[in-house]
Amino acid sequence: MRPNTLRALHRDRRLIVNGWLSIGSSYVAELAAHQGYDSLTVDMQHGMVGFEACMGMFQAIATTGAIPMARPSENSPAEIMRLLDAGSYGIICPMISTAADAARLVESCRYPPVGRRSFGPARGLLYGGGDYFTAANGEILVFAMIETVAALDNLDSILATPGLDGIYVGPNDLAIEMGHGPANEHSEPTVIAAVERARKACVDRGLIAGIFCSNGPAAAQRAAQGFDLVTPGNDAALFRATLASAVTAARQR
Amino acid sequence: MRPNTLRALHRDRRLIVNGWLSIGSSYVAELAAHQGYDSLTVDMQHGMVGFEACMGMFQAIATTGAIPMARPSENSPAEIMRLLDAGSYGIICPMISTAADAARLVESCRYPPVGRRSFGPARGLLYGGGDYFTAANGEILVFAMIETVAALDNLDSILATPGLDGIYVGPNDLAIEMGHGPANEHSEPTVIAAVERARKACVDRGLIAGIFCSNGPAAAQRAAQGFDLVTPGNDAALFRATLASAVTAARQR
Amino acid sequence: MRPNTLRALHRDRRLIVNGWLSIGSSYVAELAAHQGYDSLTVDMQHGMVGFEACMGMFQAIATTGAIPMARPSENSPAEIMRLLDAGSYGIICPMISTAADAARLVESCRYPPVGRRSFGPARGLLYGGGDYFTAANGEILVFAMIETVAALDNLDSILATPGLDGIYVGPNDLAIEMGHGPANEHSEPTVIAAVERARKACVDRGLIAGIFCSNGPAAAQRAAQGFDLVTPGNDAALFRATLASAVTAARQR
Amino acid sequence: MRPNTLRALHRDRRLIVNGWLSIGSSYVAELAAHQGYDSLTVDMQHGMVGFEACMGMFQAIATTGAIPMARPSENSPAEIMRLLDAGSYGIICPMISTAADAARLVESCRYPPVGRRSFGPARGLLYGGGDYFTAANGEILVFAMIETVAALDNLDSILATPGLDGIYVGPNDLAIEMGHGPANEHSEPTVIAAVERARKACVDRGLIAGIFCSNGPAAAQRAAQGFDLVTPGNDAALFRATLASAVTAARQR
Amino acid sequence: MRPNTLRALHRDRRLIVNGWLSIGSSYVAELAAHQGYDSLTVDMQHGMVGFEACMGMFQAIATTGAIPMARPSENSPAEIMRLLDAGSYGIICPMISTAADAARLVESCRYPPVGRRSFGPARGLLYGGGDYFTAANGEILVFAMIETVAALDNLDSILATPGLDGIYVGPNDLAIEMGHGPANEHSEPTVIAAVERARKACVDRGLIAGIFCSNGPAAAQRAAQGFDLVTPGNDAALFRATLASAVTAARQR
Amino acid sequence: MRPNTLRALHRDRRLIVNGWLSIGSSYVAELAAHQGYDSLTVDMQHGMVGFEACMGMFQAIATTGAIPMARPSENSPAEIMRLLDAGSYGIICPMISTAADAARLVESCRYPPVGRRSFGPARGLLYGGGDYFTAANGEILVFAMIETVAALDNLDSILATPGLDGIYVGPNDLAIEMGHGPANEHSEPTVIAAVERARKACVDRGLIAGIFCSNGPAAAQRAAQGFDLVTPGNDAALFRATLASAVTAARQR
Repeated sequence: MRPNTLRALHRDRRLIVNGWLSIGSSYVAELAAHQGYDSLTVDMQHGMVGFEACMGMFQAIATTGAIPMARPSENSPAEIMRLLDAGSYGIICPMISTAADAARLVESCRYPPVGRRSFGPARGLLYGGGDYFTAANGEILVFAMIETVAALDNLDSILATPGLDGIYVGPNDLAIEMGHGPANEHSEPTVIAAVERARKACVDRGLIAGIFCSNGPAAAQRAAQGFDLVTPGNDAALFRATLASAVTAARQR
Repeated sequence: MRPNTLRALHRDRRLIVNGWLSIGSSYVAELAAHQGYDSLTVDMQHGMVGFEACMGMFQAIATTGAIPMARPSENSPAEIMRLLDAGSYGIICPMISTAADAARLVESCRYPPVGRRSFGPARGLLYGGGDYFTAANGEILVFAMIETVAALDNLDSILATPGLDGIYVGPNDLAIEMGHGPANEHSEPTVIAAVERARKACVDRGLIAGIFCSNGPAAAQRAAQGFDLVTPGNDAALFRATLASAVTAARQR
Repeated sequence: MRPNTLRALHRDRRLIVNGWLSIGSSYVAELAAHQGYDSLTVDMQHGMVGFEACMGMFQAIATTGAIPMARPSENSPAEIMRLLDAGSYGIICPMISTAADAARLVESCRYPPVGRRSFGPARGLLYGGGDYFTAANGEILVFAMIETVAALDNLDSILATPGLDGIYVGPNDLAIEMGHGPANEHSEPTVIAAVERARKACVDRGLIAGIFCSNGPAAAQRAAQGFDLVTPGNDAALFRATLASAVTAARQR
Repeated sequence: MRPNTLRALHRDRRLIVNGWLSIGSSYVAELAAHQGYDSLTVDMQHGMVGFEACMGMFQAIATTGAIPMARPSENSPAEIMRLLDAGSYGIICPMISTAADAARLVESCRYPPVGRRSFGPARGLLYGGGDYFTAANGEILVFAMIETVAALDNLDSILATPGLDGIYVGPNDLAIEMGHGPANEHSEPTVIAAVERARKACVDRGLIAGIFCSNGPAAAQRAAQGFDLVTPGNDAALFRATLASAVTAARQR
Repeated sequence: MRPNTLRALHRDRRLIVNGWLSIGSSYVAELAAHQGYDSLTVDMQHGMVGFEACMGMFQAIATTGAIPMARPSENSPAEIMRLLDAGSYGIICPMISTAADAARLVESCRYPPVGRRSFGPARGLLYGGGDYFTAANGEILVFAMIETVAALDNLDSILATPGLDGIYVGPNDLAIEMGHGPANEHSEPTVIAAVERARKACVDRGLIAGIFCSNGPAAAQRAAQGFDLVTPGNDAALFRATLASAVTAARQR
Repeated sequence: MRPNTLRALHRDRRLIVNGWLSIGSSYVAELAAHQGYDSLTVDMQHGMVGFEACMGMFQAIATTGAIPMARPSENSPAEIMRLLDAGSYGIICPMISTAADAARLVESCRYPPVGRRSFGPARGLLYGGGDYFTAANGEILVFAMIETVAALDNLDSILATPGLDGIYVGPNDLAIEMGHGPANEHSEPTVIAAVERARKACVDRGLIAGIFCSNGPAAAQRAAQGFDLVTPGNDAALFRATLASAVTAARQR
């Protein structure tokens, strides 16, 4: 089976730079895949992407060595299994707040006897290779999004879930639940402390600590703080910003 | 009929900033339409866009005040009429090298007795309004792309074509035909002189002089040279550049 | 944030005429949006529409002042949040039979601390505006579909749900559960009484009482009965009827 | 090969009622196909339809006994052959103004030695049957649109084109070229006379005389005048009218 | 209502040959529908198919007499109802392990008072006919997939579920849960015994016993064993095999 | 620039096995790309494929080492340039009957000063690499389809066209024009002689001689006759045959 190169990067203590795709276009995905990301995550929760567009985006990503991952819209076994069958090599699942949530997530991503994934890998077989069934449990990465106060309370039991590979912090939902508004990067001390606590607990267990960041420099800062996987902004926000700046520059005298 | 605001901008000697869409996605088009462009051109020649995606992009643009335009893949009456029926308020036609080319182009864009456009405005009627037939000839803008040596030789007769509203310089094809390679901005004196000659001849006749530029600052420079309409880079190139820079920044220590 | 004009219409005691879109086509949606509806609802339950087509339909609606709404396929937080992120300004949720159902529905539509909506408004940001997060809870409308006997039994507690803006009666499912068949308009006294009881309870609380009707005259009658929001037929049924009548007329001698 | 039932209808002097599809949706096409039309024409000239949507619409039509036809965007052999390969059983070609135009049209629709159609019937084979190659020349209908003054001048030579099955009058383009505006039905005596002259010349030769009409009653009138094939309005216009009328009715007090 | 011909085939003790569609393409579905299958099942669980592609595939199937069915991604009422509204005449539901699962499945497929299906048959009305509501409960087939050890344990109570029409054995998931790997056809005695036990219990009750097979000969063997409905391989696997064999043959010297 | 591996195969006198894609599906294209073909050609002439589906298919092919090519619908510069911009590494152009046709074809595929291709490689840049402009003329393969009697008459001048890389024989259109019907493989002596004459003239000049074959064994025979590139059947025909055979086998007792 095609190896999940993110595992080696993490083993070698090298930073994983993960792109974020919310635009439902295989051409956009291919444009992104050529820019040097280690992985690209298709966002089925907040992204404007349906299932078939997602599959096309996975195909586009697979024209390069970048690893395709997906964020499902919820912790739904049926949806997660479909994304894996379409060739996703990682799942970043929103709203994991308890160990039971995490166990359910892992079960969806692993074939028996470890989990309850149904067999029928479809496009995954093309991308992964003929030994998909025997090797998939060892290659596919499972991330629990930590973005609720409950998740912080249950951090230890979540992290103890067998088969979980890491966490992915969603700073905005976390901060909003803590009473703040969304922000590019949160400066509230309680949010900062919560994020750091999640990161440390994760890293201490040898799991992969990931986080969404608003842009490249913010991602570098998170990497410096000890995060293993960073997302330097999402496609739509970066696109908006660069177009707005091109228009402004054009109007400059 | 909804007025083509580009006409008023030109009349008032205000710069027209035109975006360039080569990604076949209505969401990308809507993201772009909110960034302050005066108009957005869907590229059916070099863009990765089919007819129905183009219509969806025109719908997305029509959620804002930006004016939708299109570049057809060639000087084809059938294709141009379809783009107009889908709601395009301007045509930027590639490879206009003779007065006959220009006349054929104008004929495709105007209803009789001025031209030979066939009646059936479809979505154009929704976007333009109930008086589309009587007003369309006066609102829709027709640009001839000047991008061959022959076009420069025939500049006067092209510009004299009744019903032509302006030119749009394609620096790369022009430079390539003159023996140079593609470039972000061309520094070869012969290319610079050719572009300036086209601009001046156009402006002297009171027509709209437009040009493709590689980015915002280059567009500002073209505006300073006296171009009336500038395109500060295309969507795919700007997107690639901003993602690459986010990845690089994320890896910075 | 762009105001939800339906709120003002209701405040001013003006009738809301809502269109119903079950055809997955952005062109059909745009055709409809120009016919004078106050709002248009994309039907993800019984309509032949997938998520990306729905987004395109919201874009088409947004070329006019009509307010885009959606009926999700079920009371699913993940699905509802995706529809809101795509720009829906209202949710008409099927099969709300208990106060718990209604509370879950409202929670999906409101950001904390009121609800549990996850942040990431995507296209909603383009349609709504930059202050989306702070204003969305006040603009987006939440309707509970009353279409079961249980819902009638629990009407008071459903209507008492904080954050619920109104109801939307589904006469067919209600009548079917009461032992009748589907009908254009139901003449069974028990159905008539049930519908009237739901309307009155809703209006008495100052909430918006909406209902599906089979055509324009039936909608006018519902308006006369005191409904605030009426849907004069769905797109497919109206389309079928007008085509059938055109064929019949053509064959008339 | 599946017989083209329009041939039998014409042979039996029965009216052919043809629907007109400008909305690129297979669901709309299927809704229409169930309303009693003898044939349905997908409009690739003024319709908002791309090639793949057209194929899906042909599939939808083929769920019923209605005959699928298409209007190409122009008299292009490549485009016409693609529509035939996708299963079209008739071509209504715009802008046939000379015998040479008509000959070129017929050649595109017939296999050698009659014409120059390239072999590769694809979906046509599924719809038509295994003997497609030997029988297609005898089943597929070819209509020349008469919609220019030149076409009227050349009527006899156009109608004399071997292999041409009929004409289809486009009243709007014809009237516009004659100096009038578009209209639902044209009352200008010169237009009326021109249409009648075309009809009579066609019918006198035993060919099928078809015409576009604005609605059902207008189609009945054309049938009464002796037209063999009538189109009682296009989908978008009928849809717009019925929705507008539903909205108006709903607002009636 | 159009009769579900599978019922008659079963009544007459004739084998039902069912095709399996995992490729999201209406053209592929139409190609398949012409090859002699009694029914075709669109796979929304492991197939690369979204909702709208599924509808297009149902349309393509409906150009022939083959019966359209679907496998939903899970036992979800909302998803199942959507598939039925799109015209599915049968549901093959994965992972039915208890009588409660089976009851929930049947409820989703039947209108009250038998079940809880919501009314709004959309395309189903076109395919089924005007009396859809009154007749659908009697035509639509409901199959429970037997693919877990728990299902075998609960076989009797599952089969006793009123309204269930049959079972469909998923040999791979069953074998995997029993500790074996996936295989074209399973030779492990425990798997063989389990499959036979399921078949016999089903047939003894007069219900339809179906099973997925890896190819045509394997399907014939299952038929010989007494299965009523067999699936001779899925589209993607058959397609892969025939292409690989064409390439190998081409390279033969 | 990514090398066109077909050039090396030909240089090394190794057979090129080329697949043929007429189904507009990126999943089908990816399934095919994994079966061992050296190249895959998307058929825009007789295939059921639109431009955007074609781009998705090129992306799917690019997940493997197979070389993507396309057959345009006609010898249209605009269409050919679009296919190249989308990443096609070869053009197999139908109906090349004269040296002028061949010259026009080559011009569409080569940048100046060799040809007249317009610059804007879009996705081609991603697939080919950053030096696309300088290297593309040397990598992209241009094939003239020989499928008319005129082409045979003009064979020498066609083959002498500078920049032409080879021919691709279309046996069916050729045989049909010679008065025969379509066939899997043609046994008529005149057709056999014509095909052999075309092959020999091509090979004698060191150009690549390609041909369409009905299946794998027929392709092997063509290879044995000295063809350099063979197509062992098209996707739809192979798919139909394998499904029909699976159904027949399933019904075998």
